[in-house]
Amino acid sequence: MLEHGGRLRQAARASGTRPADWLDLSTGISPRPWPFPEIPADCWTRLPEDEDGLIEAAMACYGAPALLPVAGTQAAIQLLPRLRAKSRVAVLSPAYAEHAHGWRLWGHEVHEVDLRTVERQIERFDVVVVVNPNNPTGEYRDSGRLKGWHAALQKGGGWLVVDEAFMDPTPEGSLAAETRHEGLIVLRSFGKFFGCPGARLGFVAARPPLLEALRDIAGPWAVSGPARWLGQRALADSPWQAEARRQLVRDSQRLAALLTRYGLTPAGGTPLFQWVRTDDARRLDAHLRRHLILPRRFEHPPGLRFGLPAAESGWSRLDHTLSAWRAA
Amino acid sequence: MLEHGGRLRQAARASGTRPADWLDLSTGISPRPWPFPEIPADCWTRLPEDEDGLIEAAMACYGAPALLPVAGTQAAIQLLPRLRAKSRVAVLSPAYAEHAHGWRLWGHEVHEVDLRTVERQIERFDVVVVVNPNNPTGEYRDSGRLKGWHAALQKGGGWLVVDEAFMDPTPEGSLAAETRHEGLIVLRSFGKFFGCPGARLGFVAARPPLLEALRDIAGPWAVSGPARWLGQRALADSPWQAEARRQLVRDSQRLAALLTRYGLTPAGGTPLFQWVRTDDARRLDAHLRRHLILPRRFEHPPGLRFGLPAAESGWSRLDHTLSAWRAA
Repeated sequence: MLEHGGRLRQAARASGTRPADWLDLSTGISPRPWPFPEIPADCWTRLPEDEDGLIEAAMACYGAPALLPVAGTQAAIQLLPRLRAKSRVAVLSPAYAEHAHGWRLWGHEVHEVDLRTVERQIERFDVVVVVNPNNPTGEYRDSGRLKGWHAALQKGGGWLVVDEAFMDPTPEGSLAAETRHEGLIVLRSFGKFFGCPGARLGFVAARPPLLEALRDIAGPWAVSGPARWLGQRALADSPWQAEARRQLVRDSQRLAALLTRYGLTPAGGTPLFQWVRTDDARRLDAHLRRHLILPRRFEHPPGLRFGLPAAESGWSRLDHTLSAWRAA
Repeated sequence: MLEHGGRLRQAARASGTRPADWLDLSTGISPRPWPFPEIPADCWTRLPEDEDGLIEAAMACYGAPALLPVAGTQAAIQLLPRLRAKSRVAVLSPAYAEHAHGWRLWGHEVHEVDLRTVERQIERFDVVVVVNPNNPTGEYRDSGRLKGWHAALQKGGGWLVVDEAFMDPTPEGSLAAETRHEGLIVLRSFGKFFGCPGARLGFVAARPPLLEALRDIAGPWAVSGPARWLGQRALADSPWQAEARRQLVRDSQRLAALLTRYGLTPAGGTPLFQWVRTDDARRLDAHLRRHLILPRRFEHPPGLRFGLPAAESGWSRLDHTLSAWRAA
């Protein structure tokens, strides 16, 4: 298993503290969850059924012509590599590590490559995987460029896989509407923008035959009943989404300004997190943990990713702790 | 995708009725769900974490030395075939169809065999899959006999996979406690006995190295946060479990008596369903559906499986509808 953010219980146990004592900034999950109402009992007491309107709500929200609900983007990452014979796969890196891991697990030939390699040597690959905006670096890829990659790959029956797990706050950058084209596969996460990662819900947008094949290997009842119910309602709540986008953009700018004030100018970011590239990552991580603040540290390249604090008390704790770091 | 019970929306749509108009007896799910309290918000708003006590509660409830939580027994059925090189697999049949389907999907050589073949030719197989008690026929397999099969298979490094999805009401028949032995794998379902299939929760009991390998291919966050939370609490609620067992045994006997009264003596059953083996299955199914009662029909062998009605009104509806069938 690869390491991930969100392991607050582990961090608390290691330091003899309680999870509630911590400020958890280790994920890129919105601290402003969609305010869901009470979930009807029959979401629990009955098997989930396909004909519940979830897919239609997701199609409208993402502008995608066809979708498959899955148990989080993670499930799609585990399933996709099974649909191809042994392929040469380029993962534009650094990026969310589960992509390269998932393709390798299935015996594909995986290359973690930089932008220049994809641009100049795309014909070497059968599949290109790109996270957009990228996690953890917060880089956005231009849609036109991605469409060019897709066109180049399609000539040889290849795929472009675009993981848009953090795209919800900036939907204008999404390629979901283009997935009527063969070989373009877009992954969407429900939990991050809607602040509901515990539900385990995500979507794959692609041509229907590919979705059917995915559905076969995912098996029946892949998504829980409550997740289907609340997903459908949250995806249809456009006014809430518009307001959440505004708030996340504002909070994310505030976070960038705070980090910059202490000499930690983000190298990139999205409305859901900021990315600080620093060779001091290990020491800064240790400092923050001593003050019960949990960031997410990466090693290649070295840096820290910061999610958004939920409350004013969190903002001032982060402020004070970074101030102490700067003074030390 | 194989066909399954529980597709009430589909049945309602096909007949221009509402799901609420129907009496759904098409699953073997308890109509008496564990009465769960309100689920804390952070089960939704945080990523699920392993260190939450779920595994310990399941170990105590099932008496198993080691367990992996999965998103329903179904997830385990999809994952297990990936852990073996191409094998000769015997599925004791008829049985829940996803087992044979799952092993075939991975290119294994699958034989759907009868008891006599397993007993006499077990050395022909690398893996034997048995559903105990069996779905849909309700047959119980003797633990001693299963242990003998396991011993025979283990000589050649083979596996005995026991799907105990319907074992909760009769825990004395479980082999979960024996899974300290290499090559014995027991699957448990949470949703059926606890009346909570929408949650998508199940467990695999086996030796830790096998569980680790399964966990790797299942990936992180395979089970939703709310399912982990309520699973932990329900599995620890022994008084509720004892009372639920008593009620299910009583209801199931009542169902057997009702069916018998109309010439439909069950050929087998468990406290969660009764199995009526009848060449009239297709006609009886159509009759019940006309009266908005949904049983689960099987073709090989022909028969109907009946789950338990939840309310007195359901019992009397079934009674009247079977009476009309007998009179016709």
